[in-house]
Amino acid sequence: MAPTVATTNDAKPVANGAAAKQNARKRFQDVFPRIRDELVDHVKSLKMPEDAVEYFAKNLDYNVPHGKLNRGMSVTDSAEILLGRPLSEDEYFRTAVLGWCVELLQAMFLVADDMMDSSITRRGQDCWYRLSGVGTIAINDAFLLEGAIYFLLKKHFRSDAYYVDLLELFHDTTLQTEIGQLIDLLTAPEDHVDLKRFSLDKHQLIVIYKTAYYSFYLPVALAMRFAGITDAASYDLAARILVPLGEYFQVQDDYLDCYGTPEQIGKIGTDIVDNKCSWLVNVAIANATPEDRAVLDANYGRKDAEAEQRVKAVYEKLGVKARYEQYEEDSYKRICTLIEQIPAEPASTGELKREVFYSFLHKIYRRSK
Amino acid sequence: MAPTVATTNDAKPVANGAAAKQNARKRFQDVFPRIRDELVDHVKSLKMPEDAVEYFAKNLDYNVPHGKLNRGMSVTDSAEILLGRPLSEDEYFRTAVLGWCVELLQAMFLVADDMMDSSITRRGQDCWYRLSGVGTIAINDAFLLEGAIYFLLKKHFRSDAYYVDLLELFHDTTLQTEIGQLIDLLTAPEDHVDLKRFSLDKHQLIVIYKTAYYSFYLPVALAMRFAGITDAASYDLAARILVPLGEYFQVQDDYLDCYGTPEQIGKIGTDIVDNKCSWLVNVAIANATPEDRAVLDANYGRKDAEAEQRVKAVYEKLGVKARYEQYEEDSYKRICTLIEQIPAEPASTGELKREVFYSFLHKIYRRSK
Repeated sequence: MAPTVATTNDAKPVANGAAAKQNARKRFQDVFPRIRDELVDHVKSLKMPEDAVEYFAKNLDYNVPHGKLNRGMSVTDSAEILLGRPLSEDEYFRTAVLGWCVELLQAMFLVADDMMDSSITRRGQDCWYRLSGVGTIAINDAFLLEGAIYFLLKKHFRSDAYYVDLLELFHDTTLQTEIGQLIDLLTAPEDHVDLKRFSLDKHQLIVIYKTAYYSFYLPVALAMRFAGITDAASYDLAARILVPLGEYFQVQDDYLDCYGTPEQIGKIGTDIVDNKCSWLVNVAIANATPEDRAVLDANYGRKDAEAEQRVKAVYEKLGVKARYEQYEEDSYKRICTLIEQIPAEPASTGELKREVFYSFLHKIYRRSK
Repeated sequence: MAPTVATTNDAKPVANGAAAKQNARKRFQDVFPRIRDELVDHVKSLKMPEDAVEYFAKNLDYNVPHGKLNRGMSVTDSAEILLGRPLSEDEYFRTAVLGWCVELLQAMFLVADDMMDSSITRRGQDCWYRLSGVGTIAINDAFLLEGAIYFLLKKHFRSDAYYVDLLELFHDTTLQTEIGQLIDLLTAPEDHVDLKRFSLDKHQLIVIYKTAYYSFYLPVALAMRFAGITDAASYDLAARILVPLGEYFQVQDDYLDCYGTPEQIGKIGTDIVDNKCSWLVNVAIANATPEDRAVLDANYGRKDAEAEQRVKAVYEKLGVKARYEQYEEDSYKRICTLIEQIPAEPASTGELKREVFYSFLHKIYRRSK
C-alpha cells in the first residue's frame, strides 16, 4: 500500500515502495541541518550570548527532527503530484522548507502538550520540559519553535505572490489546533473523570480541530499554494476530503492504542488509564447498557491495570473491535466517494488531482502501526 | 508632562492633560468588548461546546484588558499625530484594533512569563495559571491569545495593501521578545544565583529584545503602516529612536522597583530577592570593589529581607541612585538628539514626525510610577 511516487531525482529505479520511502525520508531529513543553521545563524547575528545560541540550537535539534515526518514529507510529495513532474533541486528544497515548517508547528504543540499532560517520554526520549536546565522554560521554547516558522517563511517565500496565503494557512491552522486542544483539555482532564462530558460528537470535534487540520489539510494546502492553485473552491474541496481523512486517521490511532501490539505502535497504549476521549470509549458509551456504563464510570481513567482490564472487557462485550472494522470500511468508501468529486483527468497543471488524496488514503488504510 | 493631544472626537475642550488621558483610556477600553465578541463569536460559530466558549471568553476578559494599556493606546495616539488630524470613527476603531493586538501579544507573554517565574499576582489579581480549573491549560491559553491577533488582523486588515507588513511586524516582534525572554531566563534563573552571568551589556540585550521592541517600536510601526508610511528608512529611524527609549523606560522600571514607594508603583519591589538581572545590580557590579562584590554575591537573590538590605547598602555606598539620575539625564539628551534627526517640518503627511517620539519621551521622562 506504500506509495510508489518517485521522490528523489536519483536516476536508478527504486527497488520497491519501502526503499523509495526510505530514500524520500533521507532526502527530507537532509534539508533539516540547512534550515536549522539558518535559524541558529539568525540568533547568532543578533549578538546573543553563546549559552542562548546553544540552548536554542538544542531546542531545535531535540524537538523537531525525530518524528515520523509524514506531515512534512507530504508537502513535497503532494507538490510533486500536483505539478505532475519531478521537482527541481530548488523546488524540492522550498517545499521541504514548508514541510519543516509543518514539523516545527507540530513540535511546538508537542512540547506544550507534554507539559499540559505531564507526559514522561515522547518519540523515544524524555519529554523536553523534563530535561535538566529546561523545566518551564519549555513554554518559551514552544513559542520559539512557532516563531521559527515565520522566520523561515519570510526568508524563503517573501517575494512569492502566495506568501500571504502561506502565512494565513499557518495562522488559521494554528488557531484551529489550539481550539481543538482547549476542548480536549476541558473534556478529558487527566485528574477528573466524568464520562458525561464524552460523546462521539465531541470526539469528532476534538479530532478535527486538534489533529485533522494541521496534519492533513495544512500540508496539502501548502503544496497547492506552491503548485499555483489559487481558486477558493479547490481549497474547500481539499478540506472536505482531508478533514474526514484526518478524522479516520485519528480513530485508527485510538484503535491501535488499545489493540495494536507494542511492536506495532512502539509504545504501550495508555488512553484508558489516562482518561482520554478516545473513539473506543465513545463507541462503548453510545452502545452501553446501564450496567456497562456503570462499569465504565467506575473504571475509566483509573491508574490501575485491573480497572483497565474491566474497561476492555466492556469493549469486548459491546463488539467495539468489529464496530471499528465496520467504521474503517465505511470511512474508506466515504473518502473514495469524496475523492471522486475531483475530475479524473484534470485539464491542466494548477488543478487538484485525485492522486494527492489517494496517496494519503492508501498510506493509512488498514494500517497497523 | 502628560500629553495634551486630543484623542476623542468630543467637541468640549478637555480641562487638562489628566482628564484627556482618562477620556482616551475610556475610549480605547470601550473598543475591547466589540473585539472580544468578534473572537468569542468566531469560536461559537465553529460549534464549540459551551464550556469551551465560556472558558475562552474568560481567558480574554481576565488577561487582556486590565493593564495600563499604554502600549495599545500609543497606536491610536501615534496614528493621529502622523495623520495630523483627528481620526474618524472608523479610523479610530481600526487603530484601536491594532492597539488591542499589541495588548493581546502582551497578555500572551504575561500569562506565559508568570508560569515561568512562578509569579503569584499580576495586575492586582491572581495570576491566570493559579486559578482553579486553569493550571497548565494556561500554556494553550497563551497560544490562543496570540492566535487571536492573527484572527483580528485578517478580519479587519486583509484587504489593505499593508496587511502583510502588519503580519510581519507581529511575527518579527514576537520572535525578538521570545529571544529576549530566553536570554533573561538563562541569565537570571530564580533558583540559581550567579552574578558572573550578569553585565550591563547583557542587561541591555535583554531589555532591548524582551521589552523595547514590542512595547515601543511595535505600536509606532503599526501606526506608521496605518498612516501610509512605506519607506524602510523611516522604520529604521523609528527603531533607532524607540529601542533606546524602551531601554531607558525599562531602566526606570528597574530603578522604581527598588526606590519607588508602594504608593507610586502599586507593588513592593522584589527584584533583589528574585535574582533579577536589574540595571541597578549591574551598575553596582560594574563599580564594586572586591569587598562590595563579595557582599553582592552572598546576598543577591536570597529570599531574606536582611540580605536584601545588605544589597541595598552596597547600592547606597556605590551611589547607584546618583548614577541613575545621571543616566536619566544622559538618556533624555541622547534621545532628543536622535529625535532631531527627523526634519522639524515634515514635507507631507505620510512622513515621520518628531512629535510621535517626543510624546513618548515626555510621558516617561522623570516618571515616578
